[in-house]
Amino acid sequence: MTTTLRTPVAIVGAGPAGLLLAHLLDEAGIDSIVVDLRTQGEIESTIRAGILEQGTVELLDRLGEHSRARIVGHRHDGIELRFDGEGHRIDFPSLTGRSAWLYPQHEVLKDLIAARVAAGQDLRFGVTVTGIDESDQEHPRVLAVDADGKELVIEADFVVGADGSRSVVRPSVVGSMQGGYFREYPFAWFGILCEAPPSSNELIYSNSPDGFALISQRSETVQRMYFQCDPKLDPSSLSETEVWENIQKRVPGTDLIEGPIFQRDVLRFRSFVSHGMRKHRIAIIGDAAHTVPPTGAKGMNLAVADVALLHEALRALLQENDSRLIDTFEQRAMQRIWKAQHFSWWMTSMLHVTDDASDFDRRRQLGELRSIAQSTAGQTYLAEAYTGWPI
Amino acid sequence: MTTTLRTPVAIVGAGPAGLLLAHLLDEAGIDSIVVDLRTQGEIESTIRAGILEQGTVELLDRLGEHSRARIVGHRHDGIELRFDGEGHRIDFPSLTGRSAWLYPQHEVLKDLIAARVAAGQDLRFGVTVTGIDESDQEHPRVLAVDADGKELVIEADFVVGADGSRSVVRPSVVGSMQGGYFREYPFAWFGILCEAPPSSNELIYSNSPDGFALISQRSETVQRMYFQCDPKLDPSSLSETEVWENIQKRVPGTDLIEGPIFQRDVLRFRSFVSHGMRKHRIAIIGDAAHTVPPTGAKGMNLAVADVALLHEALRALLQENDSRLIDTFEQRAMQRIWKAQHFSWWMTSMLHVTDDASDFDRRRQLGELRSIAQSTAGQTYLAEAYTGWPI
Repeated sequence: MTTTLRTPVAIVGAGPAGLLLAHLLDEAGIDSIVVDLRTQGEIESTIRAGILEQGTVELLDRLGEHSRARIVGHRHDGIELRFDGEGHRIDFPSLTGRSAWLYPQHEVLKDLIAARVAAGQDLRFGVTVTGIDESDQEHPRVLAVDADGKELVIEADFVVGADGSRSVVRPSVVGSMQGGYFREYPFAWFGILCEAPPSSNELIYSNSPDGFALISQRSETVQRMYFQCDPKLDPSSLSETEVWENIQKRVPGTDLIEGPIFQRDVLRFRSFVSHGMRKHRIAIIGDAAHTVPPTGAKGMNLAVADVALLHEALRALLQENDSRLIDTFEQRAMQRIWKAQHFSWWMTSMLHVTDDASDFDRRRQLGELRSIAQSTAGQTYLAEAYTGWPI
Repeated sequence: MTTTLRTPVAIVGAGPAGLLLAHLLDEAGIDSIVVDLRTQGEIESTIRAGILEQGTVELLDRLGEHSRARIVGHRHDGIELRFDGEGHRIDFPSLTGRSAWLYPQHEVLKDLIAARVAAGQDLRFGVTVTGIDESDQEHPRVLAVDADGKELVIEADFVVGADGSRSVVRPSVVGSMQGGYFREYPFAWFGILCEAPPSSNELIYSNSPDGFALISQRSETVQRMYFQCDPKLDPSSLSETEVWENIQKRVPGTDLIEGPIFQRDVLRFRSFVSHGMRKHRIAIIGDAAHTVPPTGAKGMNLAVADVALLHEALRALLQENDSRLIDTFEQRAMQRIWKAQHFSWWMTSMLHVTDDASDFDRRRQLGELRSIAQSTAGQTYLAEAYTGWPI
């Protein structure tokens, strides 16, 4: 017994990209169906950090009453670069007229799901997509099994894969799961969540002889911190004392406020850009099309920038039969993606310490950090990327 | 038969750094003796390119009638970055209020030698320095053999090594010839001088899939151009046609004006920073203390910046017995040196193509070039370094 549904746009993945796309299409009067492998509870409880660019917050404002970005989020008007025993604040508003927002990603998802439910839109959890049927290029079909184990087919005018780095839609666009540009980095982040008040009001990006550390925040009572580690490190292998020693020695000059650590993980660094983002009437966006290392905080913002381009292209295509925007969608999206890949690589390589770096490399790195810190133009160049280029 | 001379400052090396230092010391009423291994003819006929920072030109203005920097030199108000088939001009004055000057280095040397001769100062060519006698720390002695094969000893209150990358003074400061930080680069420049009118009024720094090329100028009838090549390439192994093909394919969009090639050479890329620049009353400056790859055009400018700091420190030390400036000379000079090393590395890595670069790396590089070209702040950050940070 197969259920067959019909919709203008079938969206695979109920993450930030998929849900925001559905919302913006609905605003324009275009129906969609969103399906996700996970349950609603799993999606809303996966705690991830999020630095939102100003443009991302402005797009989320379009959720209206359902957007709490400016209420639950914290506006950050700067970051601190620390190196060679000195702290240098990069002041975003005076340099760029923009800011960034620290906002838990799962809160964004709660807002997006609430908005979708309130609008009475079709959103299905626990749906396993098994493939895309492209036999009719004008009407691709999503083949799936629903939460009850029944076969589900969604016939659409356009299929969007917003289903993360292990995207099942990607092979339909580029021919294989591996069809892309890769880069591995020789380090990872050891991340913790702890119960403690903030040690700093703004993020501290610290380069030290022992490696990189990032002092971040979550709320008045919960903090998020990271330190550079070996990608093979077992997160359970360090005692709580050892974890604090590792972080503290990387941020000399700040006495960290310690507290019980209730979550720890090792994040591996990886860059990926898909060989393509669209084929006929199938597109991939967000992590399905690209992943960045976390140093530049670009992940979710890039996904939202994809949505900003794609929803306009779909409006033109589906409502006016105008294919010009969808034909240039990939080329326009890729410009931002490669700038963001560069920014993420740059922040990573400028701040981390590698085992094979020579004494020359280490001093050149300090020369670079000093060049940025001593130049208003250098600071502005960094702040523009951090707060986000205009979409 | 040994000749013994006595002078406040003994300067080894009659290059730009040594000669300018002698001039500025003379301005302050401090005598010096300058010696060089080479003949005056050799020095004045060694043709080297030079991009002078604005601050360097302003220091050379102090040569008065002997400075032709603004007459023989050409003020350059910008450079072009070319990549991915597009040209992007970086306009120096509107971004920084400063400019750069293209000026043949041997013309600077002629001016400096003329100024020294006019002032009746002691300048000796063909002198082979064999060592520095440091037995009296307050009065180091330069041990040498003069042009006639006679032993020469110069007793001084201070000895300065401005004798290039194979400095014989450096071991007295850092203990050995190898006492420094090194970096090798996996490429070189194939440089030519040719008889032709300019193909471009300003320098073109071009990144292409085939590698880097630099279109530079020399005069109305002679041009200087470079293209990235293997460091092991024999400069005589290419026909003139092959040389032009190599350059032309790296600057698509510009029809180069060809002409007879009358000089060709392969420049290897190497970074070096000495472990130290001063010990007691001996200092090293310029190439004796640091070398940079040519991409950032920082070599001579760094030497001049060293001189600017050292001549003030020597005035305080020798005229007022105040050692504070000489005690901080190295630390202050090193700040600029490491920023310049970074800039040279950055321009090199952003513009050149390496054999081991992945497709990801290549696209990230284009993302970086686009980030700079599309951002006024990014362009300014580059232009500030190119035209020179304030001395």
